[in-house]
Amino acid sequence: MPVDELSSTFSALADPTRRAILERLAHGQATVNELAEPFDVTLQAVSKHLKVLERAGLVTRDRVAQQRPARLRGRPLADAADWLARYRQFFEESFDRLEEHLRAVQTADRVELVDD
Amino acid sequence: MPVDELSSTFSALADPTRRAILERLAHGQATVNELAEPFDVTLQAVSKHLKVLERAGLVTRDRVAQQRPARLRGRPLADAADWLARYRQFFEESFDRLEEHLRAVQTADRVELVDD
Repeated sequence: MPVDELSSTFSALADPTRRAILERLAHGQATVNELAEPFDVTLQAVSKHLKVLERAGLVTRDRVAQQRPARLRGRPLADAADWLARYRQFFEESFDRLEEHLRAVQTADRVELVDD
Repeated sequence: MPVDELSSTFSALADPTRRAILERLAHGQATVNELAEPFDVTLQAVSKHLKVLERAGLVTRDRVAQQRPARLRGRPLADAADWLARYRQFFEESFDRLEEHLRAVQTADRVELVDD
């Protein structure tokens, strides 16, 4: 059960349909019908995904006549992006170290083969 | 059950201890003992979190004598950062639109009060 906001955000992002819904909502609010159209999913499935996104605070629902269009809340996504961006430098440095290590190992192997 | 790599990554990130473990590993490989030390968690809990991170491909375990130090795999984290960065512009634009809307509504309210 994630309790902190970052955990709720990452948990909500852990589904390709939910990410696609967020991408669509980034271009403007949409009803459940509009959201279901481009995806091969039922209205019920979209409603369920919207509930997860709403609980995680990534989406709010308005009330317009009989409709309840969904709208993106960008702030939690920006916070998640910030967390990853902050550590990106370290992640990339850790690649570089690994690549250097692999190159060193491969070079050592070649030297050994030549020596044989 | 997340199947695609991005979903696995976001799912693994949905826990504050797992994120803290990744932050620690970004500075270099560490054993389970070393990872457990700064956190108020048992060795068993750290092992369990490492298993989740390993299944998601964010961590690999080496074998050095009797130890199995964990090492960060940065690539999936960079991919997750890329996904969020790609949509950041839209998220931020959607903030701006919301803020503009709120300002407009507040201004309209004030005008209405003055008119009364």
